[in-house]
Amino acid sequence: MKNNYKVKSKLAIFFVFAFAYVGLSQNADEEQIKKLYDTALTEGDGYDWLNYLSNQIGGRLSGSIQAQQAVDYTKAQLDSLGVDKVWLQPVMVPKWVRGTPEFAYFETLPGTTTNVPICAIGGSVATSPNGVKANIIEVQGIEQLAALGREKIQGKIVFFNKPMDATQINTFTAYSNCVNQRYAGALEASEFGAVGVIVRSMNLRLDDYPHTGSMNYGEQPVSERIPAAAISTNAAELLSTSLKLNPAIKFYFKQNCKQFNDVESYNVIGEIRGTTKPEEVIVVGGHLDSWDLGDGSHDDGAGCVQSMEVLNLFKKTGYKPKRTVRVVLFMNEENGLRGGKKYAEIASTKNEKHIFALESDSGGFSPRGFTFESSDKDFDKVLEWKSLFKPYLVHYFEKGFSGADIGPLKNEGLVLAGLRPDSQRYFDHHHAENDTFEHVNKRELQLGAASMASLIYLVDKYGF
Amino acid sequence: MKNNYKVKSKLAIFFVFAFAYVGLSQNADEEQIKKLYDTALTEGDGYDWLNYLSNQIGGRLSGSIQAQQAVDYTKAQLDSLGVDKVWLQPVMVPKWVRGTPEFAYFETLPGTTTNVPICAIGGSVATSPNGVKANIIEVQGIEQLAALGREKIQGKIVFFNKPMDATQINTFTAYSNCVNQRYAGALEASEFGAVGVIVRSMNLRLDDYPHTGSMNYGEQPVSERIPAAAISTNAAELLSTSLKLNPAIKFYFKQNCKQFNDVESYNVIGEIRGTTKPEEVIVVGGHLDSWDLGDGSHDDGAGCVQSMEVLNLFKKTGYKPKRTVRVVLFMNEENGLRGGKKYAEIASTKNEKHIFALESDSGGFSPRGFTFESSDKDFDKVLEWKSLFKPYLVHYFEKGFSGADIGPLKNEGLVLAGLRPDSQRYFDHHHAENDTFEHVNKRELQLGAASMASLIYLVDKYGF
Repeated sequence: MKNNYKVKSKLAIFFVFAFAYVGLSQNADEEQIKKLYDTALTEGDGYDWLNYLSNQIGGRLSGSIQAQQAVDYTKAQLDSLGVDKVWLQPVMVPKWVRGTPEFAYFETLPGTTTNVPICAIGGSVATSPNGVKANIIEVQGIEQLAALGREKIQGKIVFFNKPMDATQINTFTAYSNCVNQRYAGALEASEFGAVGVIVRSMNLRLDDYPHTGSMNYGEQPVSERIPAAAISTNAAELLSTSLKLNPAIKFYFKQNCKQFNDVESYNVIGEIRGTTKPEEVIVVGGHLDSWDLGDGSHDDGAGCVQSMEVLNLFKKTGYKPKRTVRVVLFMNEENGLRGGKKYAEIASTKNEKHIFALESDSGGFSPRGFTFESSDKDFDKVLEWKSLFKPYLVHYFEKGFSGADIGPLKNEGLVLAGLRPDSQRYFDHHHAENDTFEHVNKRELQLGAASMASLIYLVDKYGF
Repeated sequence: MKNNYKVKSKLAIFFVFAFAYVGLSQNADEEQIKKLYDTALTEGDGYDWLNYLSNQIGGRLSGSIQAQQAVDYTKAQLDSLGVDKVWLQPVMVPKWVRGTPEFAYFETLPGTTTNVPICAIGGSVATSPNGVKANIIEVQGIEQLAALGREKIQGKIVFFNKPMDATQINTFTAYSNCVNQRYAGALEASEFGAVGVIVRSMNLRLDDYPHTGSMNYGEQPVSERIPAAAISTNAAELLSTSLKLNPAIKFYFKQNCKQFNDVESYNVIGEIRGTTKPEEVIVVGGHLDSWDLGDGSHDDGAGCVQSMEVLNLFKKTGYKPKRTVRVVLFMNEENGLRGGKKYAEIASTKNEKHIFALESDSGGFSPRGFTFESSDKDFDKVLEWKSLFKPYLVHYFEKGFSGADIGPLKNEGLVLAGLRPDSQRYFDHHHAENDTFEHVNKRELQLGAASMASLIYLVDKYGF
């Protein structure tokens, strides 16, 4: 009885200490996370960096002067943070140039034309110097091509007009469900003898901006490639209605975009070396290149400056990570993913041990949470941290796609994650002329950065 | 043993049916809520109504022609929905008019002036026709007036420059913590002999828009009232820095706003009569008046059209409520709350039984959840519904302030609630020239309306 009492007593003492420790640790985490958020909201530099990237440099298409200026600028800023190491990682990237502004109209009767806003899809070939003029046939997606067959498509321009599904709450799901028209529409339509394709912009809103993006001709010989352009959603609606009234409409478009040889560019990398486990690497990043129409503020200037801010917030709050925390600004996500592939290749060559990678590439909107690609066990660990984010209204912790640039790093031991901001307005701006700085709210941007820093703090402290 | 078996068997059958019923009911709720969201996102009319209110009518200050136009327009729209009853509820409202544009500058040396953007605070008296020119003294809130005393304040303009606290995640908390400078600053400063007050705009962002809002002179005789104006945040920073360099700066401002006698206006009301419990009333509303500087799209055109949309969505989805669901567009929330008080007074006179009231008056941004003023028991009931909102990322269900207009209805039996949209951008626009239609996103607005309709559907179905 006495022994038993002792055992119970010892156990009780053990539990008191255990709980006290857990309590203290929880408090320490709450305090550090609050420090990260407070600092981001009052002393963050991300918004100013984004201002420079957007308004002093502008759109940063791979291989452009602006992309190189962005490399130089972000490297200099990382240098100025006093992190342990900053370097450029060379990578060959494709260079595609839009050329002179595209031009398009449709003609209901000869001489009766309506101009419509279009833009070449990234990677498209040019039209002939005089443009393409042909009858146009509307389809609601690639699947409908085969049903129509060569007979109805031969010699025509194919108009892919499947809209994004407005009932999807996550707008990225709506995007995924119809982006293949843009990506593979030209290749597929050319198989049926089409002479060009016009694709409804990936935009849930009705407005006048054409949205570009990437496309792929696969192994198709250059001589067989047909030109592809995106048309604004308003113009897509107009064209569709006009075609119902008169299927014999002729459509004209002209673009002189061109693919050059690959050129050298860089991933921009900076790191704080871990104090006790420097060999374990945590990556946080976004992509530095953007499309050329806007200034790439949401896609993905925001993700770049948020990632840089993570290191900045650690420095400003005096947090010294145990593990190496590395920011990577990937080059060429938009039309090649060369930066992401190169980074993973070098990491593998060097046999670096990555334990976690977080990407921000969904805009600088209010952060709602994170998605994770991980084992169930690691995800359960992440879920234990979720309540720490409640005061910041960051509530969405789910398994799901992380990010394109960090994808090539994927291996069994590594946890990948993506920041998930509110997605409602993202496709209003995505790849269009109105992806500009004034559409980013400073607090929303900084709350995203603080959320990322907090998650990385927890990963660094507790590991996987 | 056999009997016992029978009892068990019966119990088992009971539970199977009970769970099946709960399951079916849960499914029915999921389906109806999905229908409400889908319809809001594809066939909602709220965004078009808001376009008209904002761009065809504009700012709707109580007693103005625009306020009357808004009454006529919204009544006509409710009539066109084919709800069971639409009517106007007369209410006397204050009429304050801004007059010619305000003008202000500060003078570091005689003849060296810097113009600054100001606007009269709603309800303020005019300056003398030639304006007020005086030394200016900065304080960080009303609390500092007593410490300075009459000696340092007499004959001066008081500059209230306490900023909103950027570390508050809920921006409404930051607002609450310093809005008393605007509301009571003039009254308090005049007690110490001040000749005017200039108040830093309630805005977390640094920009050039002055933000108006309400103020109160209490029982102070008109002859003792001093004029009050808001200054943009950028100008407040400039003025503060300039005062540090030269405390002898003179500040000048001129405004000729005026308070007229009360005029008649209206609450606009429409309802769908309940099928089986028509005597139980559920209210959903926003306020139809706005400030005069912008077009009042977020404050509170959004709340009005979302509330109208609730009835519209019930009609469009064929949902016939058991209880009476009533939309109320309250007049005069901004500078008097007369509409809210009148509605409660008439409801009480008629002995109407209200069981639930929901207000949307926090902007048309992505809905994050709801706050509730209720008993613990009723709140527990609400929490049972929370999981139904998870697919729509509506996650914030907490006790807290509901809304100003429905406040006067408060009694023990009634549950009050407020829609809580993302608050980060609200004060960028609140009461300023840039509270305009293009800053409202259609999807965010419609998701808010669907969230409100879903909550009201659940209240109607299950009651309290």
